Amino acid sequence: MAEDKLPTRAENYSEWYNQVILRTEMADYAPVRGCMVVRPYGWALWENIQKDLDARFKETGHVNAAFPMLIPMSFFEKEKDHVEGFSPELAVVTIGGGQTLEEPLVIRPTSETIIGHMYSKWIKSYRDLPVLINQWGNVVRWEMRTRLFLRTLEFYWQEGHTAHATRPEAEEETRRMLDTYRNFAVEAAAIPVIPGRKSDSEKFAGAEATYSIEAMMGDTRALQSATSHHLGQNFSKAFDIRFLDQNNQLSYVWTTSWGLSTRFVGATIMTHGDDQGLILPPRLAPYQIVIVPIFKNDEEQSKVMPVIERLKGELKAFRVKIDDRTEVTPGFKFNDWEMRGVPLRLEVGPKDVEKGSVMVARRDIPGKAGKSILTQDNLAEQIGRLLDEIQQALYDRALAFRDAHIFDPKDYGEMKEVLQNGWSFSWWCESRECEAKVKEDTKATTRNIPFDQPGGTGKCIVCGKPAKVKVHFSKAY
Amino acid sequence: MAEDKLPTRAENYSEWYNQVILRTEMADYAPVRGCMVVRPYGWALWENIQKDLDARFKETGHVNAAFPMLIPMSFFEKEKDHVEGFSPELAVVTIGGGQTLEEPLVIRPTSETIIGHMYSKWIKSYRDLPVLINQWGNVVRWEMRTRLFLRTLEFYWQEGHTAHATRPEAEEETRRMLDTYRNFAVEAAAIPVIPGRKSDSEKFAGAEATYSIEAMMGDTRALQSATSHHLGQNFSKAFDIRFLDQNNQLSYVWTTSWGLSTRFVGATIMTHGDDQGLILPPRLAPYQIVIVPIFKNDEEQSKVMPVIERLKGELKAFRVKIDDRTEVTPGFKFNDWEMRGVPLRLEVGPKDVEKGSVMVARRDIPGKAGKSILTQDNLAEQIGRLLDEIQQALYDRALAFRDAHIFDPKDYGEMKEVLQNGWSFSWWCESRECEAKVKEDTKATTRNIPFDQPGGTGKCIVCGKPAKVKVHFSKAY
Repeated sequence: MAEDKLPTRAENYSEWYNQVILRTEMADYAPVRGCMVVRPYGWALWENIQKDLDARFKETGHVNAAFPMLIPMSFFEKEKDHVEGFSPELAVVTIGGGQTLEEPLVIRPTSETIIGHMYSKWIKSYRDLPVLINQWGNVVRWEMRTRLFLRTLEFYWQEGHTAHATRPEAEEETRRMLDTYRNFAVEAAAIPVIPGRKSDSEKFAGAEATYSIEAMMGDTRALQSATSHHLGQNFSKAFDIRFLDQNNQLSYVWTTSWGLSTRFVGATIMTHGDDQGLILPPRLAPYQIVIVPIFKNDEEQSKVMPVIERLKGELKAFRVKIDDRTEVTPGFKFNDWEMRGVPLRLEVGPKDVEKGSVMVARRDIPGKAGKSILTQDNLAEQIGRLLDEIQQALYDRALAFRDAHIFDPKDYGEMKEVLQNGWSFSWWCESRECEAKVKEDTKATTRNIPFDQPGGTGKCIVCGKPAKVKVHFSKAY
Repeated sequence: MAEDKLPTRAENYSEWYNQVILRTEMADYAPVRGCMVVRPYGWALWENIQKDLDARFKETGHVNAAFPMLIPMSFFEKEKDHVEGFSPELAVVTIGGGQTLEEPLVIRPTSETIIGHMYSKWIKSYRDLPVLINQWGNVVRWEMRTRLFLRTLEFYWQEGHTAHATRPEAEEETRRMLDTYRNFAVEAAAIPVIPGRKSDSEKFAGAEATYSIEAMMGDTRALQSATSHHLGQNFSKAFDIRFLDQNNQLSYVWTTSWGLSTRFVGATIMTHGDDQGLILPPRLAPYQIVIVPIFKNDEEQSKVMPVIERLKGELKAFRVKIDDRTEVTPGFKFNDWEMRGVPLRLEVGPKDVEKGSVMVARRDIPGKAGKSILTQDNLAEQIGRLLDEIQQALYDRALAFRDAHIFDPKDYGEMKEVLQNGWSFSWWCESRECEAKVKEDTKATTRNIPFDQPGGTGKCIVCGKPAKVKVHFSKAY
């Protein structure tokens, strides 16, 4: 807890973001450049993300496994786009047990190569397919510019890796997992996202096609929140993953991979947070409810605390924190938990004990408008309803904000203007040249070509040539 | 699935162990020497271990966090016993992003140093104490002789790291977590364990005292199944973790650490397995029940399958697998799931459909003795009872086996004999010399000095000098 106030988002968005994370104790800087420590409050949020996503993966038939973190350097050289994309970012182990290694080992930046190697051992027949494996773990990418959660040398994620008998099945899987991410983002995190296909220059190193969900942060910059890759036969050819099909023919499998990382914690902070700090969506919040006892003396305390304990018992379906610290005032606690983004605060004082009431304050609606008085009877049901309302309100607010900042500029000049403070949704001829020009002029990149297209054709906003798709351009994290 | 039979445990215990793991697809060898791939069946067992343990940690007030995997080499040099113990086992990153690093980074073999560094930043006052943090993750130790699950270069574990204001509080925590491990081993894994204190030569590098739980495997060798360390002020002095106490005095905190790893999967395999393969304790088994449909033709199939689907619905409190493969016979499936150690097998055929019955076979009791016929009515309750019985039977059997192989030899000559095929529980003078002599003569080491002591004093079984404690000697994994 720092004494001075948070910078506002308008003053300095980037500093607001860092300070919120440090002051709410979500994360801290590690002694190694670009690494972070995820502190218990941040990790509890990530655990809730994991739990929700993991259930969705298992419902869609996936199982978890663990592949080694150390990968022989030579594996990376087997797929040419992959090595080109990742070699500048590798952390390399050259010494083990005091000896220089014959072949250096790479700490995985992603696991297509090692998993491809194992799949070539395990997959022999069409009966072995599909293979639907996910892994939760850490990876290392040697990034130069780092930000807590958004881009760190080591980060945490899940990576799904699947193998299929046919191209359509792999494509279906790729899209199914993108849908899974979309549903998770919308339903659990209350983050509106746009699903679509990345441009060739933005796709994963080694993929035939990369799909993403893109979200708008509170400063209107975009954040790629998850990706799903159709890898075609690129990795099955590089790692010789072949199977005997039903006609006894040897064929290469079709593979996919898909991932969501601790970046998503950053997305949650920047989508919902306000100048007071975090606002966490109820489905993912480490604490959904904080109860602050209000009393002036021991007598009042002895009246209030048993009621609070009883209420906590009745609220056991929720994640509840009782803040019973005695060294700080209720006012201090209100500010503290507001900053930490707990969706609902309950206050119970001697008058509430007498009246059988509870004061409740919504984090998403500051001041009096967000306060109401509930009866202690039937509290769990009332609270459940309020949390659902907050979840929906956060989504609606984020959606309205986003839609108010996506523009359809009439020409390239106007596009450059709107990209100062929003996204442009414009016709694009799909050429790398036009994409590069926009980046050069505005720092904005193509986010994705959304599945939801207006139909018809238009003229590229950059070069004026015929265009078949509209694309989102924006600055991005 | 291999066609030929498993080697028996009597023929070749070590080969039995490896083959069970490979054939049941719990794990496989990775391309890097000494690393393993934990396959979905093995990882599902580890996930169940994690879920059970994690709930126990949270009940005792602990929270999870994530500290970076990469640690500056210099951190290891701050605690002299620690660096001595771990420096031969380090994996070192010397290149990042194509550049040689100024200071090499170590992949954590354990996290006392990096966590100590962060605690020195976070802990300022007695109000910040205790800090009760756990982390689930991977670590790397450059071992020369490796075995799947038992000793691998990279392994998975949890490591708890706590900080306290006083020595007694740290000691209490150290013992509490050992109790937690003991309860987990007994209640969830049905593994009888002996809690006690490690000898000085066997304790953790940097600890004041190490406590362990020790289990006996099916070949009578011991396996240290979890450890809990009282670190005194060794790490708080090395990393300058100080706090202002209630009298405004600056003091060093007292720290503990404790861990349980994927070794425990090996312990589960070797405690319960038999010549047919795995026997998994119901509380941890990935599948508690497999249902094998029995039919000869399409007509029978169309009668049997709906009943099985209905029964699966009624058994939703359990982890159930329906083996509906059509390319293999029921007999093949019986063998397959026996090898995979599923506690209960249900068979449902046309006659069962008519009679409203289900054939059930217990994995822990082979042949007819383990079979019975249940009614379909009230199946969940009957199954629940049977699983509890199996859980208890596995524990009882392991306990009887262990107790039949712990001896109280009358002299050193007899001790050397019993150590060929069991443990010796003998008076020991606590000198390193006697410990070393036993190791030299028999390869047995002290396992631990159990808390449960006979009382009184005796004569060291090695040197005959007065001894205050009895200790377990045995060969160990």
